[in-house]
Formats: sequence, structure tokens, C-alpha cells
Amino acid sequence: MRNKIKSKYDLLRQQIYIIIYGANTFWGKLFDLSLLVVILLSLILITLESMPRYDSLHHHFFVVAEWVITVFFTVEYILRILCNKRPLNYIFSFWGIVDLLALLPMYLSFFIPTSKVLIVFRSLRLLRLFAILDLMPVLGQQYHLKLALKASRNKILVFVYFIIVLSIVLGTLMYLVEGPEHGYKDIPTSIYWCIVTMTTVGYGDISPHTALGQAIASFIMIMGYGIIAVPTGIVTAEYANANKQNPELEEHRICPRCTTFIYNQDANYCHNCGEKLS
Amino acid sequence: MRNKIKSKYDLLRQQIYIIIYGANTFWGKLFDLSLLVVILLSLILITLESMPRYDSLHHHFFVVAEWVITVFFTVEYILRILCNKRPLNYIFSFWGIVDLLALLPMYLSFFIPTSKVLIVFRSLRLLRLFAILDLMPVLGQQYHLKLALKASRNKILVFVYFIIVLSIVLGTLMYLVEGPEHGYKDIPTSIYWCIVTMTTVGYGDISPHTALGQAIASFIMIMGYGIIAVPTGIVTAEYANANKQNPELEEHRICPRCTTFIYNQDANYCHNCGEKLS
Amino acid sequence: MRNKIKSKYDLLRQQIYIIIYGANTFWGKLFDLSLLVVILLSLILITLESMPRYDSLHHHFFVVAEWVITVFFTVEYILRILCNKRPLNYIFSFWGIVDLLALLPMYLSFFIPTSKVLIVFRSLRLLRLFAILDLMPVLGQQYHLKLALKASRNKILVFVYFIIVLSIVLGTLMYLVEGPEHGYKDIPTSIYWCIVTMTTVGYGDISPHTALGQAIASFIMIMGYGIIAVPTGIVTAEYANANKQNPELEEHRICPRCTTFIYNQDANYCHNCGEKLS
Amino acid sequence: MRNKIKSKYDLLRQQIYIIIYGANTFWGKLFDLSLLVVILLSLILITLESMPRYDSLHHHFFVVAEWVITVFFTVEYILRILCNKRPLNYIFSFWGIVDLLALLPMYLSFFIPTSKVLIVFRSLRLLRLFAILDLMPVLGQQYHLKLALKASRNKILVFVYFIIVLSIVLGTLMYLVEGPEHGYKDIPTSIYWCIVTMTTVGYGDISPHTALGQAIASFIMIMGYGIIAVPTGIVTAEYANANKQNPELEEHRICPRCTTFIYNQDANYCHNCGEKLS
Repeated sequence: MRNKIKSKYDLLRQQIYIIIYGANTFWGKLFDLSLLVVILLSLILITLESMPRYDSLHHHFFVVAEWVITVFFTVEYILRILCNKRPLNYIFSFWGIVDLLALLPMYLSFFIPTSKVLIVFRSLRLLRLFAILDLMPVLGQQYHLKLALKASRNKILVFVYFIIVLSIVLGTLMYLVEGPEHGYKDIPTSIYWCIVTMTTVGYGDISPHTALGQAIASFIMIMGYGIIAVPTGIVTAEYANANKQNPELEEHRICPRCTTFIYNQDANYCHNCGEKLS
Repeated sequence: MRNKIKSKYDLLRQQIYIIIYGANTFWGKLFDLSLLVVILLSLILITLESMPRYDSLHHHFFVVAEWVITVFFTVEYILRILCNKRPLNYIFSFWGIVDLLALLPMYLSFFIPTSKVLIVFRSLRLLRLFAILDLMPVLGQQYHLKLALKASRNKILVFVYFIIVLSIVLGTLMYLVEGPEHGYKDIPTSIYWCIVTMTTVGYGDISPHTALGQAIASFIMIMGYGIIAVPTGIVTAEYANANKQNPELEEHRICPRCTTFIYNQDANYCHNCGEKLS
Repeated sequence: MRNKIKSKYDLLRQQIYIIIYGANTFWGKLFDLSLLVVILLSLILITLESMPRYDSLHHHFFVVAEWVITVFFTVEYILRILCNKRPLNYIFSFWGIVDLLALLPMYLSFFIPTSKVLIVFRSLRLLRLFAILDLMPVLGQQYHLKLALKASRNKILVFVYFIIVLSIVLGTLMYLVEGPEHGYKDIPTSIYWCIVTMTTVGYGDISPHTALGQAIASFIMIMGYGIIAVPTGIVTAEYANANKQNPELEEHRICPRCTTFIYNQDANYCHNCGEKLS
Repeated sequence: MRNKIKSKYDLLRQQIYIIIYGANTFWGKLFDLSLLVVILLSLILITLESMPRYDSLHHHFFVVAEWVITVFFTVEYILRILCNKRPLNYIFSFWGIVDLLALLPMYLSFFIPTSKVLIVFRSLRLLRLFAILDLMPVLGQQYHLKLALKASRNKILVFVYFIIVLSIVLGTLMYLVEGPEHGYKDIPTSIYWCIVTMTTVGYGDISPHTALGQAIASFIMIMGYGIIAVPTGIVTAEYANANKQNPELEEHRICPRCTTFIYNQDANYCHNCGEKLS
């Protein structure tokens, strides 16, 4: 008897799982679409609330709408926990934390009113759009890019580390040369200025005024201008490489359940979730 | 009898078509050249009118000159409609709307005087220069570029989408960190700032003032600096690919009537408009 | 008798030619070195004169030094004319005009005192350093680069033309959207702003203030950020191509007289000036 | 007898050498780690001292901590001199000077109190982190990058020289066009502005105000935007080349003593220091 109930519950759980995580069934597509719409609506809401002009006019409507969205997100969050075989895995995963951050501030605002500003974390849910839209045909074309980015990740990290060390060394030097009287008020600010300069952003909120400072800044700029060639060169070469070596990878399949790439042409089951492949 | 008139009219229409759309006959070349000159003149006119110094001196001359150009554009527009076999196709095409926008504001200004400022849409006609100048030898060299851009379009779009999502997430974060008192007056403004920073433009009209804000900004800058490598890598690899795979495509022909590329070496007729090829 | 004088004069002219244009003899090297030093000195002089701090102290010394350099440049200019077989070719060449511009302002300042500021054209002589230093071993490594730049020149020009047209269209649009009250005071200024934005320079002297203006600006920035991929892709692919196709070109010779590249391995005489090659 | 003492001293020196310069033994790793921690601590200390908020509160603690670190650095410096077979080589090497600069300002501050600000040179020690972290697995992936950078160094230098000459020529031109009344106060400042513009940094502390100045600036920007393609193209092509030609180089070994790359697969001894290789 109990077994029967459990099996019934299991069946329901599996069906919810397919709706929430899959995108091949009608209800799965509808769920993805509604989620997309609600996420976008919640962002428009937060944006309008941040503009005093609109907030003063429609404050009450905004509060109600926000609670409706919060309830929707809460139901979705609970369903995601329930239908997962390993709920803890989901709760402590990146997506689990993002989903929680999207609804927690509203509930917390009962106790700590100021915590409501944390609702802007809801924008992180926008990242789900990648997962939702990932299933469109454009994905096939992203694969080589992913391969290239994976191959160049370590090199890019070494490069970023190099830029940071260089910025610290040159930032402290500029602090010495220009000093607090020209806007380089402490070493962290000088390092910030150096990153602004080296990445060619150049706000101009701080800029060198002494001849020596301008000479060093010129040197930093030309160096930064040359350095940009390095990550570009790495990604380009790796991308061309990925393009060349794995032309057959274009014809991969995607697991309908967990959306993992299936590269093995002869696979009958998904290597990730064990779903039977057609 | 009617048939004869129609056939006469057809002949005239075809001749006008060849003059307006073709560039191989003497009159076709003359038309293209005059159009080019008139478009440039109209732009110089609009530019001078926008400068109070000149407008106050020669206002009446400018008004007359603008009407002369408007009449020229109107005649051209009517001829383009008449000589087309499917006039509606032209009217609702991109070029048809651009051509209409170039003359409509002047006529509208009789009823709504303020609409005259919309004359700046005339600058869109400048895009015609691509079509006019397209027939020069330089075009052959653009072909591989077009192929590469077409191949990388989807990837670039995914990338642009990624930048926009990232800007929204990081923009709302900065709104939280810096707040309206440091210039991040609402979320749209913060997102605008984030795009300004990530693309390394860096106006400096808004810039972070808190230590945490500067740290996040530094992170955004280094990320933006690394991200620029991605579209470059894609275009480069695709361009090198197009260069490699289709070396024989350099020797394409161009239809003298509709300027379509003819890749089939044995073609006797244009595959687009059916024009006989020499 | 006259023949003999002429032949003597010819010999002298040839010797001067070798000293001035060649760099293989001791006197040729010495001449190049002195020219390099004098050009650098004249630039330091102009720079110091532009700084009121130094000019007020040593004004008389600066005037004398400038006349000494002008006399040197005048003698050099006359020698260059005399030793050339076709003096007019030199006078109306790019270098001839640059050399004249370097000395003319000083003589003109007798009649028009304000013309002395034109002496800054002397900085153009700095370009001669490329010619002088061209003969160093680094040149061999520049060759593939030159080939790649030549191959991509037309495509880059089409691209620059595209950026300019786009800047005019988007600049006039922004003039309409933002208007003179936000710094976009006329259409040329708006176009200038658009180029500043699209090239990711971003001075911030003019920046959008309306929501629509900021949205269009964001679009321009992302587009400009993507567009930068195009010239990079072209140059990279062409450079890789030049590297691949002509590995043997590294072993070229250089004509000792006119410094032209000699690619033909069997050549006995320079194909440009007819100098016998060793 | 003396021989024995000398040999004992030699053994000690060698052991210290292995600890300081090697990273394969337990003590060697511990030394590297402590050095890393002390360098980071000293930087945090300097940073906090530069911020008046913290310096006013904990000034005495900071002074004591700085002396502790200085003593540590002094001991390390003396050990490095002692354990080297050729101490003078170390003292006058780049690292020797950096290590000296990190401790000298503190001792000098006894005689010249103002010299203490020179302590910021300590940030140069951060470069040691490259050497310390170099031994991690990421290094193998840096090798092709190093090869590509070495191959493109000369070309990049020619390119940097080209940018500098261009900046001088265009900077003096802008000084003439805009003049001191628009912020271009002397020629060095104009050259600085030109580098700021050409590298697309664009602070906006100086910006053109005349129509001609803005036109020239637009030209410089578009040129700078195109020029960035050149170093990127060079590095990319060279990197792709290095990747292609030397795939087997990934499997190099590293000398445990001097951390030189060992490319020869059959080598039994390090070609640099003669250390026996396993």
C-alpha cells in the first residue's frame, strides 16, 4: 500500500521534473516561457521602483506586484526542491542560491525593513535566460566557442594575474609620483586608476598632472594597448584550433532531460542523467 | 491598341529601371553620380542649418535649397515606385522607407512646423552610398569579409546578449553599492554606466566613489578587457576560414543589373533577376 | 674641356648622393647619424620653446640655436636638390615638401612674424627616422607585416568608410535626441561625439543625459566594441597568410643604394635603381 | 684542516641555495610560501599606511611591523648573497636591485626622514610571485605564449616606435591647432593627449574644442582604432604558429634547481646549471 503511494509520488515528481528541467514537452515549454516572462517582469518592476518619478506614483501597485512575483518564485523554488532526487545538491548549487536570493529579501523585509534593497539580487535570475534560451538552434554554434574558452581559460587567468600585479606595482609608483594632492589619495585608489588606464577605459575622474606622471601614464597606456593583443591572440588561436580539430562535433545531440551535450554518436543513454536517447 | 501603349510604357519603365538601378550605362552612371552629389549636398545643408552661426546669416537660402533637394528626392521616389514591377515591395522595403523619410518631414512641416527637425533622417540616405560605391573594384575584396561576418553573426549575437545580461546584473549590483548619491541615480543609469565601462569607453560622467564600488568596477573593466577577445577571435577565425575554403570565390562576377554576386562560373543568366550575363 | 668639368661635377654629385641616400659607407653612416641627432635636437628645442617656464629664461639662446639648425637643414635641402638627377621629382615628393616645411617658417618669419609657429611642422621630419633606422636588422621582420598591411589596406578602407557613414547617421540621430542643451550643439559636434564613442575613446566632454540618448549610446558602444573585431580579424588573417605563403621571402636582400627589397634570388642589379648587387 | 671547514661551509651554502632557489624540498617550499606571505603582508601594510584613516589610528603598530618585515628582508638579502657562488652577479641583477630597494628606504630614513616614502618600491617584490608561482602546473600552458611573445617582440617594438613618432607629429600639430587656451598648454602635454587618444583611453582632462581640432582628433581616433589590429594580428599569428610548429614542446621538463625549461627529451643534466635530471 505504502509502496503504491510512494510510486505515485515518484511518478508525480518525475513529471514535475520533466516540466521544470526539460523543454521538449508542451508543459515544459510553457513553464520555461512563463518563467522567462516573470523574470523579465520582476526586473522591469525593480527598475521602475528605482526611479523616484514612477515609484512615488504607483508605490502601492509595485508592492503588490512584487509580492505576487515573490509567491510565484517561492512556489517554483519549493517545486524545484521537491522534484529533485538530491534536494541538497540543488539548494547549495549556484542556481539554488540565486533562486533563494531572489525571494529571501522580501521575506526578510518583515524583520529588517532595509533589507528590501537586496531585492536587486533578483537580476541574477536573468542568468537563467541562458539556460532557457540555450536550447535554441544557436547553441550548436556556441559549442566551439565553449571549447576555445575552456582551452584558453588558464592562459587568460595567468594574464589577468599579470595585469593585477602590474597594476599594483605601477599604481604604487604613481601614488609616489603624483601624490594625494592630484587625486591619487591612497594606494588602492592609485591601483584603481592604473586598472582604469591599462584597460583603456579612462574615466578621467583621476588623471596625472605632473610631467613625470603623464610620462608614466603614457607608458602604461601604450603597454595596456599592446597587452590587449594577448588574450585576443589566445582566444583566436584556440578557437581556430577547436574549429579545425573537431569539425564532426557540430553534429552532437542534446539530452532532452538534462540538456547535456552527447558527443558519442553511438550512445543510447545520456552519460549524465541516464535518460534514454532517441 | 492598349497593348501597344502598355508595351511602350513597359519599355520606358524598363529603361528608367536600368538608369536608376543599373550602373553600366552612361545614364545609369550619371544618375548614380548626381544622386551621390545631391545626398552629400543635402547633408552639408542640414549640417550648416544646425549651426546657429550660419543659419542666422543664410536662413532663406537654406530653406530654398532644401525645397529644391526635396523636390529632387520626391521625383526620384516616384520614379523608383513607377519603374518597379512590384511597387509595394519597394515602398515597404528598408530603402523605400529611408527614401520616404528623407522627404516626408518637409511636407509634414506645413501642418506640424516642429516636424522639420526630422529632416535629419535624411542622413540615412547616406547608406545608399554603399550601394552606389559597391560597384567599384574594392567590392571583390569585401566578399570574404561578408562570408565571415555571416558565419559569425549568430555567435556575435549570443555574445552581445551575454554582455547585455551581464550589464544588467552588474549594473543593479553597482546601484546597490554606490547608490543615487554617487551619480548612479536609478537602475537604467547604472546599466548604462556598466555598458560604458565594459566596452572600455569610460566617459567618466558617472564613476565609482566608494572603495567597494571601485573594486567591482576594476573587476568589470578587466572582464570587459578580456571579453573583447571573443568577438575578435570569432571574426578572425571565420575570416581565415572563409579565405581558406573558398579561394576560387574571388573570381565571381557581378550582375550588371541587380549587382548580385554570380558564383556559378557557367551561369549565363543572373540567378536573381534573370539578366543575361556577358 | 667642358665635358671633363661636367664629368667631375657628376662624380661629386654621385659621391654626395651616396653619402646622403646610402648608408653603407662611413660618411653615409655619419651623415645619417648627424641628421638623426639634429632632428631630435630641433624637436627638443621646439618642445622647450613651447613651455613658458623655459622660454622666458633662455629665449635668446633658443633663437640662435634655431637659426643654426635652420641653416643646417637649408644646406641639406640644397644638397639633396643638387645631387638628385631629377631635382623636381625630389622637390615635389612627400619628403621634399616635409624638408621644405622644416625650414620655410623661419625665413617667412622675417616678413610675417606670426608664421614662426609653423615651425612645429619640423616634427614631420621625425618620420625620416623610419627611413634612417629602416636599415637595421629589425626591418627583415617587418616585411611580412608590410605584406599583410598592403593586402588588408582596401578592406580596412572600406571599413573606415563604413564607420564614418555610421557615425554621420548616428551622430545626426543623437543631435535630434539630445539637442544643443545637452552639449550636442550642432551636427558636426554630434558626429565627433559618435566617433569618440564608437572608437571606445570616450572623453566625456559630451555625454548623453536623456534616457533615450543613453540607450542609443549603449547600442553604439556595443556595436563599436563588436566592430573592432573586423579590422583585427582582417589583419590577423592576412598576416597569418603572408607568413604561410612566403616563408622564403625572409631571405631577401636590400639594395645598398636605394634600400629597395630584392626578392629575386638571381638578380644581379637592383630592379629599382640599377645598382650592381653583390 | 682549512679545507675541511671550507667544504663544510660549501655544504651549508649549497643547502641554503637549495632552500632559497629550489622548490622541490620541504624547506624550499616552506621558504617560498613564507616569502609570499611576507611580501603580501608588507604590501597590505604600505597600503594601510597610505590611508590617513588607518594610519592615524595604528601608526605605532605600523612602524613596528614595518621594521620586523625589513629585518626579515635584510636576512633574506644577506642569505641570498652568501649562498650564491657569484654574489656580485646577484647584487647587480634585476632581482638583486629589487630586493635591495625593498629594504634600503627604511635604513635611509634614519638619515633622511623623507626617504621613507620610497618604501613603495617594495611593491616591486610582488614580481617575485611570478617566480614563486611559476612552478605550478599552469606554467606548462604559458610556454607557447612565451614563444609567441618572443617571436613578436621585435615587431611589437617597431609598432610601439611607430605610435610614439606618430604621437609626436600629431601632438605638435594639435598644439598648433588648439593652443594653450584649450588645455594643450605645451608640446609634451599635447603628445600626452595624443597617446591618451590613440590608445583609446580618453581621460577627457584635455579635449579639443575647435572644429578643426575635433576633426583631427576624429582622424586620430579612427586611426588608433585601426592600429590596434596590428599588435593583435602579430601576436595571434605567432601564437597560432608556435602552437602548430611545436606541439611536442608541451612535454618539456623543468630543472628542479634553476627552473630552466629542458626541451631536449634525452638530456640527463640541466643545460643551464648542470643539475642532474631525474
